[in-house]
Parts: sequence; C-alpha cells; structure tokens
Amino acid sequence: MIERTPSVVVVGSVAIDWVITPKAERERSVGGSATFFSMAASYFGPVRLCGVVGKDFPEQSLADLRAAHVDTEGLEVVPDGLTFHWKGRYHDDMNHRDTLDTRLNVFEHFDPRLPQSYRGSEYLFLANIQPALQLRVLDQMDPRPRLVGLDTMNLWIEHTKDDLLKVLARVDLLTINEEEARQLTGEPNLVRAARAIHDIGPRSLVIKRGEYGALLFHEGEVFSAPALPLEEVIDPTGAGDSFAGGFMGYLARVGETTGESLRSAMIYGSVMASYCVEGFSYDRLAGLDHRAIDERFMAFSRLTHFERARLL
Amino acid sequence: MIERTPSVVVVGSVAIDWVITPKAERERSVGGSATFFSMAASYFGPVRLCGVVGKDFPEQSLADLRAAHVDTEGLEVVPDGLTFHWKGRYHDDMNHRDTLDTRLNVFEHFDPRLPQSYRGSEYLFLANIQPALQLRVLDQMDPRPRLVGLDTMNLWIEHTKDDLLKVLARVDLLTINEEEARQLTGEPNLVRAARAIHDIGPRSLVIKRGEYGALLFHEGEVFSAPALPLEEVIDPTGAGDSFAGGFMGYLARVGETTGESLRSAMIYGSVMASYCVEGFSYDRLAGLDHRAIDERFMAFSRLTHFERARLL
Repeated sequence: MIERTPSVVVVGSVAIDWVITPKAERERSVGGSATFFSMAASYFGPVRLCGVVGKDFPEQSLADLRAAHVDTEGLEVVPDGLTFHWKGRYHDDMNHRDTLDTRLNVFEHFDPRLPQSYRGSEYLFLANIQPALQLRVLDQMDPRPRLVGLDTMNLWIEHTKDDLLKVLARVDLLTINEEEARQLTGEPNLVRAARAIHDIGPRSLVIKRGEYGALLFHEGEVFSAPALPLEEVIDPTGAGDSFAGGFMGYLARVGETTGESLRSAMIYGSVMASYCVEGFSYDRLAGLDHRAIDERFMAFSRLTHFERARLL
Repeated sequence: MIERTPSVVVVGSVAIDWVITPKAERERSVGGSATFFSMAASYFGPVRLCGVVGKDFPEQSLADLRAAHVDTEGLEVVPDGLTFHWKGRYHDDMNHRDTLDTRLNVFEHFDPRLPQSYRGSEYLFLANIQPALQLRVLDQMDPRPRLVGLDTMNLWIEHTKDDLLKVLARVDLLTINEEEARQLTGEPNLVRAARAIHDIGPRSLVIKRGEYGALLFHEGEVFSAPALPLEEVIDPTGAGDSFAGGFMGYLARVGETTGESLRSAMIYGSVMASYCVEGFSYDRLAGLDHRAIDERFMAFSRLTHFERARLL
C-alpha cells in the first residue's frame, strides 16, 4: 500500500529560456513551469518534481532545486538530448511579450512517469503541458489526490480541446489566463465564463490577469487578489507558475480547501509571483525565508485594507 | 463674503452620445463627464454642475438632474446651438472602444463661468476638459477649495501639456487612466509614474484601470480597489466619471481626507462605477438609494476579504 503524504507533485516543463526585456537580457535563464512552481511551493512543504531535461541543463540548477528540498527523482535527464528552449522579448510595459523561438528538444517526446514514491501524494499540479500527458499523469496517482490543479494555454485549447475537456472534467482547480478563459468558453464576460468552466468540471477557478492580479471563483463567491505594484520588474517569466506554487503549497500546508483557506492561498500565490518577477529565472525566489514571505503577505494586507463599516 | 459649503462643484462635458455595444445600441444616450459625476455624487451631498448644452438637450434630463438635487444654475443652455455629441463602438470584451464621431458643437466655445453661489464650495472637480479652462475655473473659486480634483486625457497631454502642468501644480488629486499616466510621465512603471506625478503637484493620485479597478497613491501608501466582476455590462461609458463622483462625494460627506477616508472613497467610487455600467446613460445611476449603495459596498468588502493573520 502506498503511503499518503501531504506533499505536492508537479509535472511540467523545465526549460532554458533566453529572456530579453527593455532593460536587460539573459541568454541562459533556467525556467519552465515546473521549475518556478517547485521553487515557490518549496517554502510551504515537500514538493516532488516530474519533468525532463537534456545534457545541457546546468548542474547548478539541479543543485539549487535539491537545496530547496525539491524531490527530483522524477526529473529525467536525457543524456543525448537538449533541454526545452524558449526565447522571448518583453514589451516596454512588461505585460506583453513576443515569442522569438521555441525548441521542444527532449520535451517533444516527454512521457511523464511518476516514481512510486510520488504516487500517493495528496496534491497534484498538472502544469501547462499537453492535456493527453496531464491525463496520463493523473492516471498514475493512486489513490486520487485530495486536490488536483491544472494549468493550460491557448495552444491546447485550439488544437487538443477534446483531451483538455476530458482532463478538466477530472480536476478540482483550474488556473488560466483571462484571455484563455474567454477562448475556452467562447464567453467574453468573465463571470459567465467562470460558470461555464465550473460546468466543465473544476469547482475552483483562478483567472490570472498578469499585473492586475487574479480572481478566484469558488462556490458562488468571487475573491479578487491584486498584484503588488512593484517599482522594479526585472523579468515577468514564471509569475503564473510561481503563483500556482505558492497557492498549492499553502493549501497543502494548511490541509484544507475551505473558501477562507483558498483566499489566503491566493494571497500567498501573489506573494510568490511578486518575488518571482523581481529577478531573472528563480534568482529572487531561491533566496527567501518565511519572514520575507510573511512580510510581503502583510504588504498585500495593507494594499487592500479599508474600513469595512464605513456605510452611508 | 462668500459662504463656505461642503458641496462639490463639477465642471465638465454634458453630452448626447451614440453608444454601440456588441449586444445593443442607443442613439441618444445622455452622457458627458459632468453628468455622470453629478448623478453619482448626488447620493452623498450637494452637487453643483457647470457645463453647456444646446437646444437639442432633452428637457427630461434636465428634470432628472434636478430631481437628483443637482444644482444646474451653472449649466448654460445655448438656444441656437447643439449639444456636444460623441459616437463610439465597444469591442466584444467591452474594455476597448473606437470613437466613430465627435462633434464639439456648443462645447467648442465653452467658457465656464461659475455662478456666485458655486464659488465658495469646499470641493471642486475639474472633469476632463481643456486645461486652460480648468485653470480659469479654479481661478474663479474663492477661497481656494479644500480639495481640488482633476481628470484629463491623452489629447491634452499631447497638445496642451504646458497648460496641463500648470493646472496640475495647483490641484490636490489627479484621476487618470494608466496609459495616460505613462504618457504624461514617460515612465512605463506605474510606481515610478506615480512618484513623477506627485512631483508635478497632486499629493493624491488615482490610476484608473477600467475593468481591473483603480490604484490610489497617497503619502507613500498604495491602495488597490478592484472592479466588481459583473455578469451583465450594458455600457461602460461614464464609469470613470461615476467613480470620481462617488469618490469626491464621499470625501465631501465625511469632511476629511485622511488615508483611511480616501480608501473608503475609492470603494464608494468603485460602487458607483459598477452601477453606472449596468445601464445605458445614467439609467441605473439615477434610481439608487443609500441601501443599494451600501449593499454594493458590502459586496466589495466580500470581494476583497481575507484573513489578515494567516502567516506561515
């Protein structure tokens, strides 16, 4: 029998990015959804990463993940392959970007297999990969995790929608960009789009809005989490995945998924995203401690505080 | 000697709009910044409107303003002129629009003159008109109001920036769209843009972000007010002006401009904006009462509530 643990399993990309911003550039910036997720979630409890890299993946980054107590048993290293590469350029406002180059490399034939030790985890996050692979990972979990989260993108909505709907019917939580929520449902209004997504399957929905924060739809309630206005945004890459890491990590830590804990999870997700964008790669995410995380939680508290009883 | 009153004077446009949305259209929709502002502010206390209309302006709308206790002594009616017309079409997401036609008509030679009874008001809002006219209105107030707010747009930033800087140096509060804040300061980062605007003059700054809400920058603190996710947005026209009306109206009502009252004012502004967009023209704004306003204030409270002490 498999032992159940409160750890979070994440399956997703591990990448070497080439990031160009208006003020700076980094040619070999370690990224990928599973990397950012793991680094962010690691502050809240055990994380187990499933992904694939090639021979060019920096030893230092493997060491960094392990130093953050991320379990990398499920991170396959293909000795004769190259790591997934993404190259992109951010616009002046840092909110839009153009993809200049994508090379799938070892990611093209990625066949995620969870180590035995991962399969009893109570929390699973299916980061943005092909829906068919997300399904295959979900099928490997035994018993079904307590909470399954999923992220996706326009590419899968366009080209593999049937598979996407199939896996969505089996997950508890969807995190998705607002444009993608509209695309998935064909509904421009977000409140209606949220209802349509609940009908597909996920009972909790996080709509990500970049520098505007995120909305949570859960059991008929809506919660709005702002993004922290930052004076220095170095590199927005990975903000959404760091958000998901903080969100899922917090839920695993408190062991409950009430409306109240989901709201706090939204803020911890926002905290991790705000740190992520203050550096290239996971530079800023890697060097935090609980005090830094709680300090920023308090900054979100001040950012949104108003007297609740100032009625006319 | 002029008697000081806690009333709010607003000077701005009064218009007949032709509004086209993906689902509906209204050809003679009464609008204009001063109209929306006045209707929204009227729930909080006395409002005095200064503007100009032509012979085609509906009698019913004059009656509606008066029924809302808006003082229209300063609303000039030009008997041989036509009211300012604006025609626009909203995109599917209701967040972007194209202007199809603008006819200044009587607004072209608008020379705002405040009735004697307006000049001692403690609160003044210079809605979006030429900066030279905003200056002329400010000069007519005696003594200087306790709080002067101002709104502007890209047109004045491009073409009459010197005048705009001159009047900005003399106001307490600026409300501006985020793109215009960037344009005014040449600074893509909003935190830096806010600092640059404080340096120009206004000690309080509201950056409006449409369906994403608004940010308040005041005495080194930032406050984020979300917009309410609505299932039915009929017509976004006037949302920003309704926000300003609720904001200034609330401040005049409580008679203080502390950080705490500014935060509550942000929420009341958001409440009035949320009602505004639920109908064409001021349809929805006109039929409210204090209970409806407080109910929606509570909806904003639920929308943003999280436990402040859930630290790691």
